[in-house]
Amino acid sequence: MVMVKARAVDGPDKSFREAEIQRRDLDSTDVLIEIKFAGICHSDIHTARGEWGEIQYPLVPGHEIAGIVTDIGSGVTKYKVGDRVGVGCMVDSCGECENCQKGEEQYCLKGNVPTYAGVDKYGEPTQGGYSTHIVVTEGFVVRIPDSIELDAAAPLLCAGITTYSPLNHWNAGPGKKVAVVGLGGLGHMGVKIAHAMGAEVTVLSQTLNKKEDGLAFGAAHYYATQDPKTFEKLAGTFDLIINTVSAQIDINGYLSLLTLDGALVNVGAPPEPMPVHVMSLIGHRRTFAGSMIGGIRETQEMLDFCAEHGIAPSIEVISADDIDDAYERVLASDVKYRFVIDTSTI
Amino acid sequence: MVMVKARAVDGPDKSFREAEIQRRDLDSTDVLIEIKFAGICHSDIHTARGEWGEIQYPLVPGHEIAGIVTDIGSGVTKYKVGDRVGVGCMVDSCGECENCQKGEEQYCLKGNVPTYAGVDKYGEPTQGGYSTHIVVTEGFVVRIPDSIELDAAAPLLCAGITTYSPLNHWNAGPGKKVAVVGLGGLGHMGVKIAHAMGAEVTVLSQTLNKKEDGLAFGAAHYYATQDPKTFEKLAGTFDLIINTVSAQIDINGYLSLLTLDGALVNVGAPPEPMPVHVMSLIGHRRTFAGSMIGGIRETQEMLDFCAEHGIAPSIEVISADDIDDAYERVLASDVKYRFVIDTSTI
Repeated sequence: MVMVKARAVDGPDKSFREAEIQRRDLDSTDVLIEIKFAGICHSDIHTARGEWGEIQYPLVPGHEIAGIVTDIGSGVTKYKVGDRVGVGCMVDSCGECENCQKGEEQYCLKGNVPTYAGVDKYGEPTQGGYSTHIVVTEGFVVRIPDSIELDAAAPLLCAGITTYSPLNHWNAGPGKKVAVVGLGGLGHMGVKIAHAMGAEVTVLSQTLNKKEDGLAFGAAHYYATQDPKTFEKLAGTFDLIINTVSAQIDINGYLSLLTLDGALVNVGAPPEPMPVHVMSLIGHRRTFAGSMIGGIRETQEMLDFCAEHGIAPSIEVISADDIDDAYERVLASDVKYRFVIDTSTI
Repeated sequence: MVMVKARAVDGPDKSFREAEIQRRDLDSTDVLIEIKFAGICHSDIHTARGEWGEIQYPLVPGHEIAGIVTDIGSGVTKYKVGDRVGVGCMVDSCGECENCQKGEEQYCLKGNVPTYAGVDKYGEPTQGGYSTHIVVTEGFVVRIPDSIELDAAAPLLCAGITTYSPLNHWNAGPGKKVAVVGLGGLGHMGVKIAHAMGAEVTVLSQTLNKKEDGLAFGAAHYYATQDPKTFEKLAGTFDLIINTVSAQIDINGYLSLLTLDGALVNVGAPPEPMPVHVMSLIGHRRTFAGSMIGGIRETQEMLDFCAEHGIAPSIEVISADDIDDAYERVLASDVKYRFVIDTSTI
């Protein structure tokens, strides 16, 4: 057992404080990672504030982790000390179910082990990346290509894979018209990745405030959804819409923007149900779907894709003392486009 | 112009009466069909009673039409006098849009011309199959294979294609677990077709009342959905669920029965929106979709498939005088499994 520094919260309405947490001794397949950077995801805020159900405090969030291997277990074969690696939203799964066998560990039928606010196979609570070190079994560690800086790599482990996976699964590419709803942490990665895949990308955002950024990220078009004419003009246009917004949207309005056999895929999950008019689907054999992060193999593929295409998130690196402020700024949509904690300040 | 006998309604709460309606003179690509049998679809009832919006009365419903070609226009190449043919839910489309060009005329971007309660390219109201003759452009006429009796062929033109198309599109076949929700006119065809495609078929019906029939149609399993244990037992089971029920169902409960990448496809359209919990989709990358009849090419393919596999609907042939009674019995689910009007009684 080793004690490491972290930043933790003690309750839904508490500020972050300095903490020491335990990391387990290395099991044979474990890798000890010195965390260099950890991204701040909106999920961290929901979880830390108990908005997604009761959790055990103190809690150390963080599932966008980039760092360096500093020790390995006796049976580790994939990594050696000094390797640049990442950890995303899960740190284990059963490995045996149908979905794990397909490499879709995120859909493990027994439930994957989330990087924080979960319980690992030893019965211990998991604690995330707002800390200096983490121990993870090598099967849930991915390699960060040399051409991606570690600070920029961190957000790829959640925001990157969450958008890459549905774009990949629903075949975004040349000849396809893809819309990304919302230009936040996830949305801006969705635009960059879909563009790199060769799709014609449109941003659908409430206002035109971030239009210049969206076009710079690779969007060909940018529309304000607060303008009702947008929905008239774009009716029946898109093969694929990735909705990154977790709040309620006019779901039937967005479905009407799909072409024959088009799919609207939610990667955010609003707490209230979406009132889907079946005629919105039947009229053009449209589908409404959901997608959650990606498997480990696909996460590695995404990192290699980003390296190959020179894609990285747009980030603002902050000190650990600024986490509470950063949370407020995320809630106010005042972030371009992802906060990343420099863990040397923890 | 030729006057032909029909059965028509004059208002939402009116009974059927004997009527004479006009059929147009044959245009060069037109086929004159002597209708032998016309199926009664639930849509006929909704439309006749004005439940799907205002319509022009008198109305002659019927879009499950089987008959014999008795005359052809000068340019007709596909059919000759004496051919056994069918007409389904549409009698024309623009032919030029992207979807028509793909052979998906049902999704015509300008709107297809429905067999009744529509307006044709001459500006005339369309009238359906509860009549002795109909004139249809040959592109919207399909050939009924010799091995299918004309009375049994009629319901294939709507109930058959409406279930065949999504089963085909979502790849029902060997190794796939398919559930059919509701064992009515559409549902019983869904079971027969999915079974013939090689899928392992389960019927999900409110009660076990029709279990014997369902198994005889080819289902391997039959569950009552009024038993909550059904949903526990079948969680995560199906690759594809075809929902033939037009009323509200517990959509999230049914979505939970899908496996990874499974699809629930509605072929019925309840008037109220379905409250979809996005987490029901995200958890296993599930999709909720809709599908409407099928294209003309696919309708021919379905007829040939049914002939090859010896599939036909289970029908009760009635006299034209019994249409009102039949409507009441459909509404009371007292039909096994499709009423077909013998149009010689009109």
